[in-house]
Amino acid sequence: MNTDEYLMKKCIQLAQKGKGYVSPNPLVGCVILKDGKIIGKGYHKLFGKEHAEINAGLDAKKHGYELKDSIVYVNLEPCSHTGKTFPCSEFLIKEKVSRVVIGMKDPYERVNGRGIFNLKKAGIEVKCGVLEYECKKLNRFFIKYVTKHLPYVSLKIAQSIDGKIALEDYTSKWITGEKSRKYVHKLRSEYDVVMIGKNTAQIDNPSLTVREVRGRSPYRIVIDRDSSLPENLKLFSDSHRSKTFSISGISKRAVTNIYSKNIIKVREKDQKIVLKDILKKFYSMNISSVLVEGGANLFSQFIKTGLFDDIYYFIAPKIIGKGISSFENFKINSIRDSKQIEFVNQKILEKDLLIYCRNVHGNN
Amino acid sequence: MNTDEYLMKKCIQLAQKGKGYVSPNPLVGCVILKDGKIIGKGYHKLFGKEHAEINAGLDAKKHGYELKDSIVYVNLEPCSHTGKTFPCSEFLIKEKVSRVVIGMKDPYERVNGRGIFNLKKAGIEVKCGVLEYECKKLNRFFIKYVTKHLPYVSLKIAQSIDGKIALEDYTSKWITGEKSRKYVHKLRSEYDVVMIGKNTAQIDNPSLTVREVRGRSPYRIVIDRDSSLPENLKLFSDSHRSKTFSISGISKRAVTNIYSKNIIKVREKDQKIVLKDILKKFYSMNISSVLVEGGANLFSQFIKTGLFDDIYYFIAPKIIGKGISSFENFKINSIRDSKQIEFVNQKILEKDLLIYCRNVHGNN
Repeated sequence: MNTDEYLMKKCIQLAQKGKGYVSPNPLVGCVILKDGKIIGKGYHKLFGKEHAEINAGLDAKKHGYELKDSIVYVNLEPCSHTGKTFPCSEFLIKEKVSRVVIGMKDPYERVNGRGIFNLKKAGIEVKCGVLEYECKKLNRFFIKYVTKHLPYVSLKIAQSIDGKIALEDYTSKWITGEKSRKYVHKLRSEYDVVMIGKNTAQIDNPSLTVREVRGRSPYRIVIDRDSSLPENLKLFSDSHRSKTFSISGISKRAVTNIYSKNIIKVREKDQKIVLKDILKKFYSMNISSVLVEGGANLFSQFIKTGLFDDIYYFIAPKIIGKGISSFENFKINSIRDSKQIEFVNQKILEKDLLIYCRNVHGNN
Repeated sequence: MNTDEYLMKKCIQLAQKGKGYVSPNPLVGCVILKDGKIIGKGYHKLFGKEHAEINAGLDAKKHGYELKDSIVYVNLEPCSHTGKTFPCSEFLIKEKVSRVVIGMKDPYERVNGRGIFNLKKAGIEVKCGVLEYECKKLNRFFIKYVTKHLPYVSLKIAQSIDGKIALEDYTSKWITGEKSRKYVHKLRSEYDVVMIGKNTAQIDNPSLTVREVRGRSPYRIVIDRDSSLPENLKLFSDSHRSKTFSISGISKRAVTNIYSKNIIKVREKDQKIVLKDILKKFYSMNISSVLVEGGANLFSQFIKTGLFDDIYYFIAPKIIGKGISSFENFKINSIRDSKQIEFVNQKILEKDLLIYCRNVHGNN
């Protein structure tokens, strides 16, 4: 690992601190080097607030340094447009930095190379593509959001080694262990939205909040086509109820439930809600990431449509036998028609095994 | 890793060359050291033939060395009884070796410390327990066989990540990839017996031989309670047919099929064959290891009874949805009643994932 890579890794680490707070903006970290010394560090902390480069620059100045002739490391191309903040590339030009090392080009159409172009035009040396793979992985939510105009979708499935997410009677409590549950809570803190289907809401009555780790709780969205879910469910009655939305085919006016203000109306087709319409709606709501937590019905729809990006499979060292499988309502006629995924990595979580899989066929 | 451990590892590597050929004897390798130099190496090659210590001694002598004052490394306690060969401990005493380093005590009741006792009595320095865990793992078939008087049982399950071993119509060809299949063939070459249930024999018509790697094919045993399987199945008609046995509740005399000579009669109870009776029968036939390759019915019986030692789960990166699960006929009423296993290790096999699990509750 050379100096550029080492400092880019620092940027990535800084950027990660913004997880859960900057969406739909990208995660960005910035390190400023001068005379072989790190003089400033910063990251994008909160949506709408200062970008990483500005924060790093302010950090340097606070400690009495000028940015002139410094080298700026940043995991994403500095922006070129005036959005909620002053364009970062202009800031770096104004401060007369000598070199900018970038992890990846910003795929957002309003930037997409213009930041790099402006820097170069101002005579600043630019290097782009350092730890590019890692930088793209870091900002997979953002990339999907700005290039496909859809949120990034992850399925979270907890099952026994023999592939059961619940017993025949739908009992599913405590299949996986404590460390897996903590991991799930950490995931929730990083996604904009946790989504579940109607049956899961009714049978499990889950909270879907972040409790076992520090972090903010996500929005909770439940599919409730005919708006008939009882309002005493935790989702609609606990202290986070203002962060619950239900997706319905019925317009707000037709619903008189207490939680009617939080209804997201999606058009129906043959008395069904089309999954892609939900995701498009999410995009329009600035939602860039969705963690789908069940049940078999909703999982099956994601597999049928291919509208998911990855799967977190939490496997418990248990054998359940008869029970409910994750993709119960998906049916193929030949093994050739099975949906291909890719095993990216595995991790032991106490007694459980986490298998992280990527969708390889998805036209996401 | 110190010298003792390093040379014990060599013994284990040598011992492994006997896999598939020494059952129900243990896998044993031996290295002889003199003046800091390895003067002889040997392993137990074939059931009934010379033990590792003798082979290593002969190897040393062939190269002009005397064993006097040498150090002998061996992964299992040298035997003390005259079986098919002269007792190895007597051989080492006669040759006046100075020290014997042993991986593990021999649990076989006719040895069980007597070899070590004899060596010590003769004034030879003995160290026992070097890489004991690895040595016990190496000889898990043998240990189960001599201590429990039952064969070691492994289940081999190939399934999609959503836990399906076949489609609804029982199609199961090519769920896993080529590297997994090769791995299974290697496993077959190490087990005495590969066993399947009746439905699997009829639906899949498998060969169960070793083709994709070098190694000897195992005995093939199929459960066929009423001896009604058609004789044109590969198991009964291919060039390995003399190595096929069928387990039946009907005595040989009552069966007139061409393969009747290979029937293993097991008593029936309520028109069912009791799994433990099969395994006891195997023990009486000197079978020390069984690889169970399906189907869901037979797997379920092993889970119900707990009569298995470990599971090789070959997981394909595929989603099948509706289909047959590995333990379809096992049913529990509460997740507390699920069968606990332990994830021991994982290995990527091309695109597949092999999860090796151990039975933790089995009273094997």
